[in-house]
Amino acid sequence: MKILLVGGAGHVGGVARVELEARGHEVVAASRSTEPGVDTSDPESIAALLAAVGSVDAIVVAVGSAAFKPLTELTREDYAEAFTSKTLGQVEFVTQGLDYLNDGGSITVTTGVLSREPVPTAAAAALANGAVESFVISAAPELPRGIRINAVSPNVLANSPHFHDAFAGMVPVTDEQVAAAFVRSVEGNVTGRVIAV
Amino acid sequence: MKILLVGGAGHVGGVARVELEARGHEVVAASRSTEPGVDTSDPESIAALLAAVGSVDAIVVAVGSAAFKPLTELTREDYAEAFTSKTLGQVEFVTQGLDYLNDGGSITVTTGVLSREPVPTAAAAALANGAVESFVISAAPELPRGIRINAVSPNVLANSPHFHDAFAGMVPVTDEQVAAAFVRSVEGNVTGRVIAV
Repeated sequence: MKILLVGGAGHVGGVARVELEARGHEVVAASRSTEPGVDTSDPESIAALLAAVGSVDAIVVAVGSAAFKPLTELTREDYAEAFTSKTLGQVEFVTQGLDYLNDGGSITVTTGVLSREPVPTAAAAALANGAVESFVISAAPELPRGIRINAVSPNVLANSPHFHDAFAGMVPVTDEQVAAAFVRSVEGNVTGRVIAV
Repeated sequence: MKILLVGGAGHVGGVARVELEARGHEVVAASRSTEPGVDTSDPESIAALLAAVGSVDAIVVAVGSAAFKPLTELTREDYAEAFTSKTLGQVEFVTQGLDYLNDGGSITVTTGVLSREPVPTAAAAALANGAVESFVISAAPELPRGIRINAVSPNVLANSPHFHDAFAGMVPVTDEQVAAAFVRSVEGNVTGRVIAV
């Protein structure tokens, strides 16, 4: 398959890229620093990327950031920025990406355990993840031409040192587990799923 | 208890108001058309309402709208407007409402089955509901002074004629079931829950 992978510079996106390439797929990896690059907060930048890459069999997106602050310090702007970055930044690849996806193709977005489990300082990220996951569930049956959509939703990452302290008592997941979830979404037949890792 | 109820002009908010008043609570109901009124898309309007009402034991919010369109017709603006209306319009009562809630008080927001079940044309509403629900789960353990938060998340309403066709095969819920969920959130001891009705 020809796969557009957005966010390959991050740990999760990098894991997906390595695995999908190892399985023989042609992966076009895009991030802020690639050529063509993409700013996923800007719909016109996403449009330019999609036009440059052309038709694909799968789109995999692992992007978005959010402010981590105690709940009482999170502002309306923090929630709005998390939504723009992590929710709209991924949903836009559905809105625009359908025009570039071949029949029977797939879209895979990335969320995380924060949508379903509380972690200190994570309310803005939780909100953005929850939005993406409910969108995936709702959007799947309406996609045309056999196109599928899923969210890969990992717990804290064993091989990424960020946030381990905040996720006290939660069992980190390996790169192999994360990679398998992306493979299932891209190569499998599931749709409308939140693939919890 | 003294309860600020926002959105009492809608069916769900109205059901909550009637039941909470029947149980002896002092309910201050606010909507666009009350005095004081509120535009929940405007944080300054929410600030003015909270200041006018003063300290309360519970805040109940049942507001927010979203465009219902086929997935391929939903735009970035539709998602953003649903988020501003239904997500930020309710989250703002946490951000600002904590200053007005008595110790041991509660916040109840309203979502719906769309966060977890697909219904045609509902992707924007689903996205906004999912954001609120994950926010509730994440925010609850960080609330100060014993304050609780829950989301009441009803299926399609038996006594409200809207959308019944779109919810084919889903079992409508009665006003009594919806009312009970609000009572549980306000008078019970649960927190961080999505109370599915």
